[in-house]
Amino acid sequence: MNELELVKRIAAMAGGGRGLVVGIGDDCAVYRPPRGHDLLFTTDQMIEGVHFRPGMPAQRVGQRALARSLSDIAAMGGIPRLCLVALALPRAKSGRWAEAFYRGLLGLAKRVRTPLAGGDLAHDDKVRCDVTVCGSVERGKALRRDGARPGDLIYVSGALGRRWDRPIRPRLALGRKLVGAATSCIDLSDGISLDLHRLCAASGVAAELDSVPVAKGSTLERALHGGEDYELLFTLPPPARAPRGASRVGRIVRGVPGRVTFRGHALKPRGYDHFRGTDFSR
Amino acid sequence: MNELELVKRIAAMAGGGRGLVVGIGDDCAVYRPPRGHDLLFTTDQMIEGVHFRPGMPAQRVGQRALARSLSDIAAMGGIPRLCLVALALPRAKSGRWAEAFYRGLLGLAKRVRTPLAGGDLAHDDKVRCDVTVCGSVERGKALRRDGARPGDLIYVSGALGRRWDRPIRPRLALGRKLVGAATSCIDLSDGISLDLHRLCAASGVAAELDSVPVAKGSTLERALHGGEDYELLFTLPPPARAPRGASRVGRIVRGVPGRVTFRGHALKPRGYDHFRGTDFSR
Repeated sequence: MNELELVKRIAAMAGGGRGLVVGIGDDCAVYRPPRGHDLLFTTDQMIEGVHFRPGMPAQRVGQRALARSLSDIAAMGGIPRLCLVALALPRAKSGRWAEAFYRGLLGLAKRVRTPLAGGDLAHDDKVRCDVTVCGSVERGKALRRDGARPGDLIYVSGALGRRWDRPIRPRLALGRKLVGAATSCIDLSDGISLDLHRLCAASGVAAELDSVPVAKGSTLERALHGGEDYELLFTLPPPARAPRGASRVGRIVRGVPGRVTFRGHALKPRGYDHFRGTDFSR
Repeated sequence: MNELELVKRIAAMAGGGRGLVVGIGDDCAVYRPPRGHDLLFTTDQMIEGVHFRPGMPAQRVGQRALARSLSDIAAMGGIPRLCLVALALPRAKSGRWAEAFYRGLLGLAKRVRTPLAGGDLAHDDKVRCDVTVCGSVERGKALRRDGARPGDLIYVSGALGRRWDRPIRPRLALGRKLVGAATSCIDLSDGISLDLHRLCAASGVAAELDSVPVAKGSTLERALHGGEDYELLFTLPPPARAPRGASRVGRIVRGVPGRVTFRGHALKPRGYDHFRGTDFSR
């Protein structure tokens, strides 16, 4: 398939969405943002052999590529509005493989009403994609990392330490519920030991972690330091009640900014650094 | 340098900009869009060995990566507002090379007031980046490909057929001048024979090309079919006066949608298809 043919197929599958004035097919997509909202922007790469195992089914690669960026929108309390996909792939994959990739990505995109508004295609020696999502949230209400205060209670959605290749379910509904309630929020992409450290450093506070919900078949070690959970870690001022499906894991305290303890002992931020290793080799 | 150190350096260089509420450092960037404007979105890849020659200086790779996306914003008549950069690079390039890359990109970003609002970093076997730019334009005024009408005069900025590796100067000021005046516009990324065909196909019209301005040291062949010019091709209803620096090259006529003739002979769209070859090998 040549570029033009593939673009035509993608455009036919992409559909439209609220506010999308011009989609695929011009130099830029044109989007009319909702009044009284701030816009959210995030971009994430998925590279064969780095972020996913060669041989992962195309549909799952596509689904996962979008899901990772949606998780960032969820962490800010946003509603996803549109996505852009830059894809490079070997010539041999520009037919069926590419179609399955877009089927996976667009299946999720439809479920969360996030039309594919544009993108870029190229040939390369392996699959690399980059998904950008634009979302929106009520003006001034974005959930940030830097709002945690001493005394706040710390929560996490779901259970941690699951396998890196399970399907990601971005916590969009939970993120929306936390708008106006949570004092801070971050998505767990690199492991709670690193991500909680980041949240505390940004907020200028420390944290005491008491327990973490360990996923069935996983270990405490993986739950603390593994990545790719894509759950939400957030803080609520007391008295707070855990939202459905979330567990209380500790509390924010005064102390060296970024310092985290687990059951009284210092917890080093050992989560995932993309400059140190590969995701799937853990 | 590890990921955290590099992100810190980039954040220190990135600066802020109008409307940017949260920049680098959270799950998403937060941007407050101007009232009464539509937003424009575009994304472009730059892959080593595909879009640029291995060994191209890092600063020029960075500058070029941003310039290509800015050219799309110019083609829609927009004002660039922010950019996001996804970058994968070999370990050996995560120090000086990466810094020079961002210096090149951010130098241009500052000149056109387009802050770096976020991005993503990964290690890979070669350099690959993807730049997303969000711009804005007065509501309903975006310049599109599909507005050309029979009788309109066709113009092009600058001269065509230049070498692929000269610095790109995105025609942002010209794009702004064309808002409310041009009936259609496209940027010349893949050669005028292909890009004029695209504009005509989108508008449901045909075109007669009389002449093209050939750059010094280039050939008519390259001017017609070469890519990477990043000039603007646009149509104005008669009577029209060429904007400064632009030349009249033909006119829009009724006919088979997408058909282009050059001095009376059919001109096949032979411009660049990223699924057929590599940019720099032409």
